[in-house]
Amino acid sequence: MNRKTLILQKALELFNEQGSRNITTNHIVEALEFSPGNFYYYFKNKEAIIREIFVQMIEEWESDLYQLDTIILSKDVLTLMLERTGLFFKKYSFIHKELPFLIDNDAQLKEINSQIQEKRLAQLHTMLEFNIQKGVFRELSEGEKEFFVDILWLGSLFWQPYLEVSGQAKEPQNSDKILSHFQLLFEIYKA
Amino acid sequence: MNRKTLILQKALELFNEQGSRNITTNHIVEALEFSPGNFYYYFKNKEAIIREIFVQMIEEWESDLYQLDTIILSKDVLTLMLERTGLFFKKYSFIHKELPFLIDNDAQLKEINSQIQEKRLAQLHTMLEFNIQKGVFRELSEGEKEFFVDILWLGSLFWQPYLEVSGQAKEPQNSDKILSHFQLLFEIYKA
Repeated sequence: MNRKTLILQKALELFNEQGSRNITTNHIVEALEFSPGNFYYYFKNKEAIIREIFVQMIEEWESDLYQLDTIILSKDVLTLMLERTGLFFKKYSFIHKELPFLIDNDAQLKEINSQIQEKRLAQLHTMLEFNIQKGVFRELSEGEKEFFVDILWLGSLFWQPYLEVSGQAKEPQNSDKILSHFQLLFEIYKA
Repeated sequence: MNRKTLILQKALELFNEQGSRNITTNHIVEALEFSPGNFYYYFKNKEAIIREIFVQMIEEWESDLYQLDTIILSKDVLTLMLERTGLFFKKYSFIHKELPFLIDNDAQLKEINSQIQEKRLAQLHTMLEFNIQKGVFRELSEGEKEFFVDILWLGSLFWQPYLEVSGQAKEPQNSDKILSHFQLLFEIYKA
């Protein structure tokens, strides 16, 4: 494995374990037993590593099997999608936990994220329209469509922080509650 | 106004404007033109100020007119409640924005918050049961009750961070979208 990949892997590991704000580039250099010069050849600073991890995460997501826009939803497909999303969010947990701060602290990351989010929301709307067209969902008002997309995306992005803040993270089964919530949402909207 | 109140006010102002992580006790002392000794007589450190602001927020919330447990819901009542909640969250915006971090960084605050959250969730469940009893809502399954409470609370706690992360904060009218979402939720559940 090349050095750049090693740095990214170790940084992700440390960020997930201790939060990116508690990790300096020195911690990463020390954990890898690299010389600082070696490190700075690849990354100017911590923000540069975080941006690279973010982009890597997006590429991984997009190379995935699912074509979000043209997927026919069912309870099983929804469960599978959510389970995969859960694993994915776990792998990059520090990003999901810290995203509001990360984008506050780095204008470049904010811009990258903003483009991705716009694309994601558009995909969710396309997915919804496609499933209405295919007769999976009933006809929906604009307000109902917005509700569906926002609840799906709010739930995906903030379920884990919500569990932690609301004191529900102690019981591990609550992690899966979002699954039944989304299935209920599906029930409400299906044709 | 006494010195303690002045410190709390100035701290809240600076935390809301710049984020509590970017503000030190020195910044607060300088902004108030107090001597450091004067300041440390009241608060040992930044965490102590944040805890006091948090407790003040809770007391303000609880002294409020609404008795959450015994309120009969309607679209108008819901709108009013949400508008008030919105103003309240705005007044203490740094807390709502940073809560996942604040509780990570301060075990005492984590404990205080955990008790409040438990109480809040219990109140929302009581409110729901009360409104089923009164015939405002139809009979609901356990899953539907959990859905209602979680969406209501997740939406209340994370709507603003969600708008920022998802790039929807640019359009001010999106702040109010949560209102129509909750009204839709009300429609789905009403008798």
